[in-house]
Amino acid sequence: MITSRENSRMKNLALLMKKAKERKARKLFIAEGIRMVGEAPADWIRGVYAAESFGERRQEQELLARLREGADKGGYLVETVSDAVFAAVSDTKTPQGILAVLKIPEYCLSDLLSKENPLLLLLEGIQDPGNLGTMFRSGEGAGVSGVIFDRETADLFNPKTVRSTMGSIFRVPFLETEDLMQTIHELKRAGVALYAAHLDGSVDYDEPDYTKASGFLIGNEGGGLSREPAEAADARVRIPMEGRVESLNAAVSASLLLYEACRQRRRQK
Amino acid sequence: MITSRENSRMKNLALLMKKAKERKARKLFIAEGIRMVGEAPADWIRGVYAAESFGERRQEQELLARLREGADKGGYLVETVSDAVFAAVSDTKTPQGILAVLKIPEYCLSDLLSKENPLLLLLEGIQDPGNLGTMFRSGEGAGVSGVIFDRETADLFNPKTVRSTMGSIFRVPFLETEDLMQTIHELKRAGVALYAAHLDGSVDYDEPDYTKASGFLIGNEGGGLSREPAEAADARVRIPMEGRVESLNAAVSASLLLYEACRQRRRQK
Repeated sequence: MITSRENSRMKNLALLMKKAKERKARKLFIAEGIRMVGEAPADWIRGVYAAESFGERRQEQELLARLREGADKGGYLVETVSDAVFAAVSDTKTPQGILAVLKIPEYCLSDLLSKENPLLLLLEGIQDPGNLGTMFRSGEGAGVSGVIFDRETADLFNPKTVRSTMGSIFRVPFLETEDLMQTIHELKRAGVALYAAHLDGSVDYDEPDYTKASGFLIGNEGGGLSREPAEAADARVRIPMEGRVESLNAAVSASLLLYEACRQRRRQK
Repeated sequence: MITSRENSRMKNLALLMKKAKERKARKLFIAEGIRMVGEAPADWIRGVYAAESFGERRQEQELLARLREGADKGGYLVETVSDAVFAAVSDTKTPQGILAVLKIPEYCLSDLLSKENPLLLLLEGIQDPGNLGTMFRSGEGAGVSGVIFDRETADLFNPKTVRSTMGSIFRVPFLETEDLMQTIHELKRAGVALYAAHLDGSVDYDEPDYTKASGFLIGNEGGGLSREPAEAADARVRIPMEGRVESLNAAVSASLLLYEACRQRRRQK
């Protein structure tokens, strides 16, 4: 059992929790909690750490048994950590006592375009980790084929973001693009119609037909989409707003657009 | 100029920032930042505090001039506070240097029902301040007539919630109910059709006709609506979810429902 925060594995965990740079360099991230660890794909797992007191409830025992069973095949260890050390390394106030170190998966654009009539979400400079996570969650619910984000977007592997995806990070393919405009042009060549969420949009968001290959461009919370991607889109769509509301929350906007596409696609079936 | 955190007004401000009980007892809350203070209704203002360095930019000068102009009529003072003391009392990491103490307005049910075909949001036990604020923001955008919440719902006047309404708190009438079921029965008697957002809903959310007086019931983030209000609703509606998503973020669910009502009402015009 690991009983010291000075243990080199614990120091490494703390770095992976806190530093985006460390996660990026090592291509690893952390998922914490029964639900998240339980939903993590087996072949992503690189290590599991359980608190000393974890395993008292039946649900906990079952998860531990499953993780130990997969350890040999997966080539990872399941290690026990004292409750105090676990609490120190945990990102949550009331730790559930289980976390896994996972590999960051690598998708390519063709993974995101493999379904018929793909539905994509393209993000430019989303700042709030909770918003990013919520977009993955709503995205999976609405049947998104993938999420593409630029380098200015918040770190997807930040523990808060991972948590707020509610597990969708394990199932929704994603891609960080170094050049959003280049990706936009590739998507257009692949026949994906792009719609920019824009306050000055000329079309209400529920007017275009999203049943064919489509993608929604969502900009930064404060400033919205920058000019270039907005102009490259096939149409700028606006979500009507009453009262004195200047804009909606970015995750809400993305969810409204994705669910409008989902609604149209359901009706067509 | 106030230069000490021990000043009795500063102590009072700190209490109003931090303590829901204090806000409730004194029927006061705080709005912070240029945008929020600028949008606050003049007759809600009970006091204004500006940091020493506030007023350097033109936008700041204009706001200060307007607040000072209203001070006599409104019977409030505009006080200057040293930057250090302002930063200590502020709820934000990078304070904008302006805050206002505002009265908590009191609405009654008839205020929320005064429009033709009202559209209401009813909340049970919403826990996350950001979600509550976002619901006000989306609600105003979708044309909601009012938001009703029970006593288990997070405090609307928490600085984080106030901020996340993006000013909608000033324009959307609201009501805290001591007895959600009683309010539900009153609304039904008033002819408002109630729809419960429910994972086991029997109807897709875009099927009912929301163009007449309607209300959406949204439950707690973790557990959803409790049995009684869900059963009292005229229908339980579900938002279809693909993949392995078990539920959507509560603010996203509320926004999807409200915007579906908004979409139907726009199309009818």
